[in-house]
Order: sequence, then C-alpha cells, then structure tokens
Amino acid sequence: MTCLCVPAVFLACAAPSTGHKTTGLLGDGQQQRNINPASGTRGKLVAARAGRSGMDRDAPAPSEPVVAPDAVINLELGDPTMYEAFWREAGELADVVIPGWWGMSYTSDAGNLCWFLDPEFEREVRRLHRLVGNAAVDDGYHLVVGTGATQLFQAAMYALSPAGADRPIGVVSPAPYYSSYPPQTDLLLSGYYRWAGDANALDGSNDGHIELVCSPNNPDGAIREAVLSGKAIHDLVYYWPQYTPITGAAAHDIMLFTVSKITGHAGTRLGWALVKDRDVAKKMVYFVDRASIGVSRDSQLRAAKLLAVVSDAYDDDSGGRLFDFARRRMAERWRALRAAVAGTGGAFSLPEETTGYCNFTKQTVAAYPAFAWLRCEKDGVEDCAEFLRGQGIVARGGEQFGGDARCVRVNMLDRDGVFDILIRRISSIT
Amino acid sequence: MTCLCVPAVFLACAAPSTGHKTTGLLGDGQQQRNINPASGTRGKLVAARAGRSGMDRDAPAPSEPVVAPDAVINLELGDPTMYEAFWREAGELADVVIPGWWGMSYTSDAGNLCWFLDPEFEREVRRLHRLVGNAAVDDGYHLVVGTGATQLFQAAMYALSPAGADRPIGVVSPAPYYSSYPPQTDLLLSGYYRWAGDANALDGSNDGHIELVCSPNNPDGAIREAVLSGKAIHDLVYYWPQYTPITGAAAHDIMLFTVSKITGHAGTRLGWALVKDRDVAKKMVYFVDRASIGVSRDSQLRAAKLLAVVSDAYDDDSGGRLFDFARRRMAERWRALRAAVAGTGGAFSLPEETTGYCNFTKQTVAAYPAFAWLRCEKDGVEDCAEFLRGQGIVARGGEQFGGDARCVRVNMLDRDGVFDILIRRISSIT
Repeated sequence: MTCLCVPAVFLACAAPSTGHKTTGLLGDGQQQRNINPASGTRGKLVAARAGRSGMDRDAPAPSEPVVAPDAVINLELGDPTMYEAFWREAGELADVVIPGWWGMSYTSDAGNLCWFLDPEFEREVRRLHRLVGNAAVDDGYHLVVGTGATQLFQAAMYALSPAGADRPIGVVSPAPYYSSYPPQTDLLLSGYYRWAGDANALDGSNDGHIELVCSPNNPDGAIREAVLSGKAIHDLVYYWPQYTPITGAAAHDIMLFTVSKITGHAGTRLGWALVKDRDVAKKMVYFVDRASIGVSRDSQLRAAKLLAVVSDAYDDDSGGRLFDFARRRMAERWRALRAAVAGTGGAFSLPEETTGYCNFTKQTVAAYPAFAWLRCEKDGVEDCAEFLRGQGIVARGGEQFGGDARCVRVNMLDRDGVFDILIRRISSIT
Repeated sequence: MTCLCVPAVFLACAAPSTGHKTTGLLGDGQQQRNINPASGTRGKLVAARAGRSGMDRDAPAPSEPVVAPDAVINLELGDPTMYEAFWREAGELADVVIPGWWGMSYTSDAGNLCWFLDPEFEREVRRLHRLVGNAAVDDGYHLVVGTGATQLFQAAMYALSPAGADRPIGVVSPAPYYSSYPPQTDLLLSGYYRWAGDANALDGSNDGHIELVCSPNNPDGAIREAVLSGKAIHDLVYYWPQYTPITGAAAHDIMLFTVSKITGHAGTRLGWALVKDRDVAKKMVYFVDRASIGVSRDSQLRAAKLLAVVSDAYDDDSGGRLFDFARRRMAERWRALRAAVAGTGGAFSLPEETTGYCNFTKQTVAAYPAFAWLRCEKDGVEDCAEFLRGQGIVARGGEQFGGDARCVRVNMLDRDGVFDILIRRISSIT
C-alpha cells in the first residue's frame, strides 16, 4: 500500500470533525502551513503547458525546487518524487501523446473479466513481473486494475468477506502495520468487514479474520509472512529490486502492486492486483465498477508506456535502467542516513541492515526500505514525532502504526534537496 | 450520475454470486456474449500506439466500427461514444502530450482544500460553467474532483451522514431513479447511510433522509426539484445545452457533474462536485483521500485540455463547437426515434417532448434526453426489456429504476452505426 495522503495537506488527512468513527491519524493541532517544496514546481508546470497541444514536451523540465534552509520538511508522507530525476533524463522516450478521440468508452477490453483493464497496460505489467521475477503471473493469475493499490485493498476486503455473516469479519495486521489500514478499512463502517487491530494479539490458529500482510513492511521494511492461517491480502507494493532482494516469485492468493512505488508516478493513481481465484477477481471487479465505474484509461495508457520504458531498458539496453538508478539512489541515502544516525552518539537508532541474494540483480544485496523506521533513544523523549517537529522534520509517529511513539516513519523517496536537509538536521542532533 | 457499467460486461455489472446483499441489477441469466461493436476498434487503437512516443498522434483515427446487420446491439448502458466523431474532427487541437517527468507527486495543489485537484482543471471547469451559465461557481463554491461523479456521489453521502447516529440515515430518490443509486449506496452496507427507496413513498415534510435529485432525470429526462425538505445531493450530470434548455444557474448545496456526459470522455473517469459548505467539501475530500488517495492527475490534465477546447470555440471561434455538434446530433436522433415509434402504430410510446427558453442558446429549444424512456404498449408484453431483447436490442428494464417493467431505458449516445440499427429495428416492429 502507498502512503496515506500527500504533502502539506494535514487537514485533509485528519478525520473530519463530525465525529465519524474512522481512525483519524492526525490531531487537530496538526494543521500546518505548506511545508513541502513540491508545490514550488507548480508554476513552471503550468507555464510549460500553456500551448495548444497541452503539455509542451519541448518545454524545459522543472528544476529541483529550492528548499529554504530553515523550511520545515515534510517526510511524514510517501511522495516518491525522488524518481523525477530519472524521468527527466529519459526525455521524450517516456512521452505519451493522447489524441482527443482516444479512450472515450467506459470499456477498455470488453472480453476481459476486468473489462476496464487496458490490454496494453496488462501486457506491460505481466512483462515487468516476468523481467523482475517477483510475482507469479503465468499460472492463471487474473489482473484487476484499481485507482491505486488503495482502492484494490478495499476491493479485496469486499471480495473476501463472507456473505450473509451475522457481523463484519475482522481485518488485522501485525503491528507495526501501515497506518492507513485502520481508517481505510473503517471508512464506511462496512457491515462486511471491520478493523480488528494487531494480528499478533490473536491466537495464531485463528482463521476467522482477513490478514493484511505487507512485505517489505510499511513502516519498518521487515520481510513478512502471514501469522494467521486464514484469508490474506498480500500488499507487495515495495517488493521491487530497489528496496529489497528479490528472493522468488511470490504466488499468494491476492497480491497488490502500484506504479507509485515502482516508477514513482503516484499522481497517476494506478495499482493492480494479481488474483488467483476467478470468483474473487470477479468480486473485486464488481467493487471497482460500483465504486468508480472502472479506472482512468488515460492513467493506464500512460503507465503502459512508462512500464514499457522500464522493461525496454533491460531487454535491449535502450535507455536508463530504472531499478539500477533507484537502487543506487537508495543505497546512497541509506548510507547517509546511517552515518548521520551514528553521528548522533546514540540519540537515534535504526533497524539493522539486512542482506540477501537477489535473483534479479544476481548478487547479494542489502535491503533499502522506502521508509526509515527511526527510533529516538534520548532520555526524556517519549514522542519522537513531536521531538523531530521541533527540529523542523515532520514524520509520522509510531503509535499510528499500532507501535511505539518513540519511533517515527520517515519518507526516503522525496527529492534530493529535501533529503539532504534531513541528513543535515539529523546530524546536528546529539 | 453516469451509466452503471459498460458495454457487454454483463457479469461485471451483476451482483457477485456470494450473496452479498447489495442490490444486484442483473440476474444470472444475463451473462451474454460480447454484443457491442465498440471493442472492434481496439486493434486499430493498439496499432496506433506502437511507436516510441506512446499514442502516435499522426496515426489514422479509428473509423466507425462496422456493425453486422444481425448483431445484438447493447443500448442498456450509457457509453457516450457519439462524441468520438467530434473529437476526430478537432484533430491535434485536442491532443495532450504528457512528458515522463510530469505529475509524479500525489499532490496537485497543496494550498487547495482539495489538494488533489489540478489548478488548471479547476480553472477550466469554472470557465465552462460561466460560459454555459448552468451552475453557480463564483459564490464561494468549493470544487472537489472525483473518479467520476460516481465516487463523488458516495463522498457526498458520507459527508452528509450525521455523526454518531444510532442507525444509518436513509437515502432516497423519487422513482424512476437512476438504477445504480441503490447498489452504489449499499455497496459496503455502510453504518452511516443505507438505501431507503422511493422518495415519493415518504411524507413530503420528512427531512430525516438524504435525497438524490437527478435533473434532467436518469432515466426519463424529467426536470426535477427536491420532493423532501432535508439534505439533498443534486446530480446534474445531464444539465448541459445538448440535453436540455439551460434555464438558470443552479445553486444547490452539492451539485455533481462529469466529463463523460459533456465531452463524452467516459474512460477518463472524471467528475466534480460544486459544494457550498466548506466543512462538507472537506469531508468529501477526506473520503476521496481514504478511498483512492486522490484522483488521476493524467485524467485531470487531459480533461483540462478538452474543456479548454470546448470553451475556446465559443470564446474565439477557434474550432468546432461541441454543444452545437451534440445538440444537432441529439435533435436528429430524437426526430428519428420519434418517427420510428410513431411508425409502430402504437406499439411503443415515449414521454412528450418538452421545450423551454435556453439562456445559453438564446432561443426556445426542445429537451433531448441522453436516454430514451421507452414504453411498450403492446398487449401481452409485460416485460419490455425481454421483448426488445428478442428483437436484438438490449435495454435496461424499468423495474431496475424502481419503475414499470413495461418501460426500458435506451442509450441515445452510442455511435451512429449502432443508433441507425436501433431505428431500423424499432421501425420494423408493429
């Protein structure tokens, strides 16, 4: 699954004030000024598309936005803007041109179980999984597309809920779990399913729940397997070579992925599920039909192109290699972060680095999670998020993940300028 | 609101077979072969985008697909492919080019209440409403974007539901109501709101419900006002000059619109709500955030361009005029349909044609609804949808709209070739 919401929009992320019983993640005190530099690119983007042909491809790409040295930096959320540099470099190879007459029907592929799935997007998704070897796609798996993995997570819960039950089935995940699982699960207080907390609090043989298995885990990067024996939804959005060794082709019943954490195109809002059982896939399709009558065809057209650029580079050396770029970048960032943490003389700690043999890169490599799960070890600091906010760093507090308030989750995928400030600020703390 | 689902995908539209208590619209017997010719364009579309630059703008546009004379035609759904001819004519004026580096952040406009709303899309939406004069946009209305009006309908119900109520608030609409309202409302059996049927069955002073006011109404094109005195969601997706006289700028609390029924780009999945109350808008934003972390930025970029092309043509005569094109086409179709129905010698009837003064066209004009609400008057025919199916015409049966099974809803927005077959077949019935 992806991050909960987006930079600088604290109020939007907070539960509304009417008392709806969803699990709000941010308190009233967290409405803050715009602190993320991302919005600074906007003027240039708008200027770049003033021409009659929409976005003018020949207009200059936006440069890295300038971050004021005293700016509060928002690393609470999961914006993957680190990838922008790769796509600037790719140039027109990654352009998409959409004529006005294209893609008007609700239907992408009337003959497909998932009738709103673009056939070219499906081909590129399966091709990429085959290239990387991270998921089984050739054993009868059905592909269901959604408006981000977020929509598919809800579709999967809907599909796995038993019909005609007296009460909602419980949805659980071992803590620390992705902080958006509880409020997304309980958004509408469904009669089918309801958030039921930490999976570790249940008897391991209990199969009367739906378990959410996030691996590598958001927030702490841990490799996970199901702890219960019942129904499971595998959230594998970070199971890509830049974040973790690819140890085999996952072949679970329901596996969720998203372009946001592969190519970095979070704004495209496109995820997919690989689903083993045809009836489950049909129910997921039904959910997406009812919830939004399918998924943007423009996004699918664009994502098909972007995924093709990624695969092409490995097939025929035709351009920059995304996983190499991102892995290099992640390695540099983790090296810098570990050095900064070490320099604090014990004020902070991070999970130990883990390594494994990666079938994709054909070498033993370290894991470089997309989030740092940072723990404050300083005496007297009980709330690490609050402490860091005093240092101009916004991160998401551990209690929102069902975990320890001395931990915070820090986004590792923002732009270079923001990440560099993070390192400088962490380094200045002792 | 738009059509329920998409051509030829009968099973996807049917409630899944697990017994979930959503209101399934189609029975088990309705899984049919692909009967819509739309899918026939697919090969050409794919071929047209084989180049490195994604969709090749210079590739020939797909021609009108050939419909076999004996094909079953599917006019049950609301695919607006009639508009494709307009956009072919528009040519490169309507192209959108999206560079690889564009739109990667989750956020479109961090300073906006609706942080995932593209500022250029917002500008073009407000500009179009000002041009047409169909809705108040300058009186502090907030704009919330959604994955189709469908997602916003759910966001609005969420936002209007009272907090902490003992039981879900009832959601009603006067029959015949849009057939997707019940199953969309009850998709997750929400603890906040629940479908409660025909608004006319309630005491008119009863304000303990949320009323859905669709005007012009789907399925019958009637101009409607709220029948209850409480909370209302105004579904105005057909309140555009090609379908009905624009009699004034609507200024309701929540008004829903969608590009599907304006430009015909249903596959773009983009709707918007104009919302008077800031707190209601915030709750709707919260819902869309939790349900899908915002809305495709690619779709918004493209729709901004398409809406700009529409407005430009009226501002400076720079190209084809969409409302003129669509109104002309609708007038021709309604004329043909009324003549065909008259030719059946009383086997069918249609609602009377209504007229009114249109502030946009500055003349008295007839209403040309996007759906025909056709009634079978033949003795012995109790189920008009079943009868028409025997004639090779698939339409949606009236009982799905809380109405009469002798009525059916027929899509008036499909391609010329399909519509022509409809007229021939109706004409042959006596």
